[in-house]
Amino acid sequence: MVLAAGIMSGTSLDGIDVAILDIVGSGLETEIKLLRFLSQLMPIDMKAKIMKQCDPRSSRVDEICSLSVELAELFAQVVQDACQLEEIKSQDLTFVASHGQTIYHQPFASDHLVASTLQIGNPAVLAERLGTIIVSDFRSRDMAVGGQGAPIVPYSEYLLYRQANRMVCLQNIGGIGNVTILPAGGEMDAIQAFDTGPGNMMIDSLCQHFYQEAYDKGGAYAAKGTINQELLERLKAHPYLKKALPKTTGREEFGQAYVEELLFEFPFLKANDFIATVTYFTAYCIGYHLQGIVEEGASLVVGGGGSYNETLLNYLQQELPNVVVCKQEDIGYSSDAKEAIAMAVLGNQTLQGLAGNVPSATGANKFVPLGSITY
Amino acid sequence: MVLAAGIMSGTSLDGIDVAILDIVGSGLETEIKLLRFLSQLMPIDMKAKIMKQCDPRSSRVDEICSLSVELAELFAQVVQDACQLEEIKSQDLTFVASHGQTIYHQPFASDHLVASTLQIGNPAVLAERLGTIIVSDFRSRDMAVGGQGAPIVPYSEYLLYRQANRMVCLQNIGGIGNVTILPAGGEMDAIQAFDTGPGNMMIDSLCQHFYQEAYDKGGAYAAKGTINQELLERLKAHPYLKKALPKTTGREEFGQAYVEELLFEFPFLKANDFIATVTYFTAYCIGYHLQGIVEEGASLVVGGGGSYNETLLNYLQQELPNVVVCKQEDIGYSSDAKEAIAMAVLGNQTLQGLAGNVPSATGANKFVPLGSITY
Repeated sequence: MVLAAGIMSGTSLDGIDVAILDIVGSGLETEIKLLRFLSQLMPIDMKAKIMKQCDPRSSRVDEICSLSVELAELFAQVVQDACQLEEIKSQDLTFVASHGQTIYHQPFASDHLVASTLQIGNPAVLAERLGTIIVSDFRSRDMAVGGQGAPIVPYSEYLLYRQANRMVCLQNIGGIGNVTILPAGGEMDAIQAFDTGPGNMMIDSLCQHFYQEAYDKGGAYAAKGTINQELLERLKAHPYLKKALPKTTGREEFGQAYVEELLFEFPFLKANDFIATVTYFTAYCIGYHLQGIVEEGASLVVGGGGSYNETLLNYLQQELPNVVVCKQEDIGYSSDAKEAIAMAVLGNQTLQGLAGNVPSATGANKFVPLGSITY
Repeated sequence: MVLAAGIMSGTSLDGIDVAILDIVGSGLETEIKLLRFLSQLMPIDMKAKIMKQCDPRSSRVDEICSLSVELAELFAQVVQDACQLEEIKSQDLTFVASHGQTIYHQPFASDHLVASTLQIGNPAVLAERLGTIIVSDFRSRDMAVGGQGAPIVPYSEYLLYRQANRMVCLQNIGGIGNVTILPAGGEMDAIQAFDTGPGNMMIDSLCQHFYQEAYDKGGAYAAKGTINQELLERLKAHPYLKKALPKTTGREEFGQAYVEELLFEFPFLKANDFIATVTYFTAYCIGYHLQGIVEEGASLVVGGGGSYNETLLNYLQQELPNVVVCKQEDIGYSSDAKEAIAMAVLGNQTLQGLAGNVPSATGANKFVPLGSITY
């Protein structure tokens, strides 16, 4: 039995999640017990700094260099806080697995860039502050063998959620939406996983724009609005929908710039109608991609911040009438904790020299161990 | 006995150096044998890309992200080439230690940046291409314990060059001059290391200006000139000389801008007199800093490109009459290979969980293992 922690800091920049786990075994025999989960809001100034570095136009090497250490100090502090709540010392952890903050992700080569990914949050600083082994940079190795470096959670999802007699679709709604489909009693190489399109990203941008609020709490604004068909048609024409599977997306396609474009094109649309339409589109994207894959009676487990948006969940059940939509919480671990748990599971694999990617999900040409180890 | 390689790609951007070594033991018992050294010129387009990312104003996160993978592919190729010359496979190497390309280094906190360093050349790509263990990111951990993350070579220098009965000063003359002083039979914490001032940087600038040549080959131009006292007095007034130890300098203090200032102030001075004076000043700076530290009969081992400048070496012997000036090559490893060898020595330490920094040289508050390991 190993005491470990996972740190996740997602592209939504909501906060820093730390899960403390007991892990027994590895690979298909992995068993975990979540001891403690702590999510700390990302400080406003740090969020602004990260967003600046995520944008090629405003990013600077000196600030990226510094931010990597600043973030590591912050990650370490959240781990320390979680340890304190659990009444352990960080040195008691056998290892800490840190996803790091993605500041750029280029899944495919473009005209002047090669496929690559960049997570910051310096592991040497983490190792020093926490007095334990750090596993970090989980996506690069998958990309080195032709994968897209994403999604990163299917390995852990397969270990923790697969069912013998029922298809399970794990739909995460963070900044971006992504799904992992675990066929009933399937092998690991039967897993499908891809990004479904926007998660909360567009909704959050609109709430910020119209109400200076970070998100649509419970989907209340969307519930008060009416879907605008003209905007919806415009949204449905987004080129991401037609792309072949597997595929990934990000802030580059559904971020601030895209939302600003829409706001410019639909200047007279009411705030709540705008939010309702974009909320429906978010559900539509999920339904669009799952139709034809998902089996009757399959379970669609929604996790991530979006699972708290009731309007979005209603739209989703409406789009997929033959599946059972439920929330992550209903079947086990809190949805918030899932990715941090996944990091710890991957770190456990890495330290035992075992693979952690799912080639059928990322497009990689083989199974590889993920991450670097800092002692 | 372990077969290992070290990769060094320095800030001068001249090229990528790979050393293949046999290493026996670790710590003070380390013994190495250099089997092969290969230096490959940095391709022009790659040099331009790196320089763009080193400058905060022109750097971009998307290009940094991509360049880290592009450089790793290039590093891997040079290791493969070195292995081929040595008639081994890269998989036969027990590990490869890669310094990475520094694109930013902030030794101290400034108003809006924390002390930090950023080396790129993705280790997951190296691990995959070379089929062996990679050790990388050597400077971060030293900085996590309050060090400047530089110099990085003193540990290896101590292991390889210390003498029981004689002080050894390892004077590197690259763009900048830097020295590591190993007291006779001394402990590691008696090591001093600092930058002595200009290395070849000013001489090279003048050769470019007067002759459109990259450097003063063998010191031939300097040998034909006469030292100009007025210029020399001006040079001796440089504020760097008065700064307290340990200290570091760079292009900011002795680069192109400074040389242009001097050329403007001394418009009638003959080319070779200018070069002779600056060459003498370069030696003077070394002598200035070593007087009072260096013991009678100490050995001053000169490495780096400057060790091929005979006029500079003559001036140096003249400035330090009581020490024995010799070249790196005279006592062992080629001066070019020294840093790549140092990386392999540090990687060997890391893999055995042993420290690799020298706190008295970097200012760190303790000895720590350096680097991250990618399997």
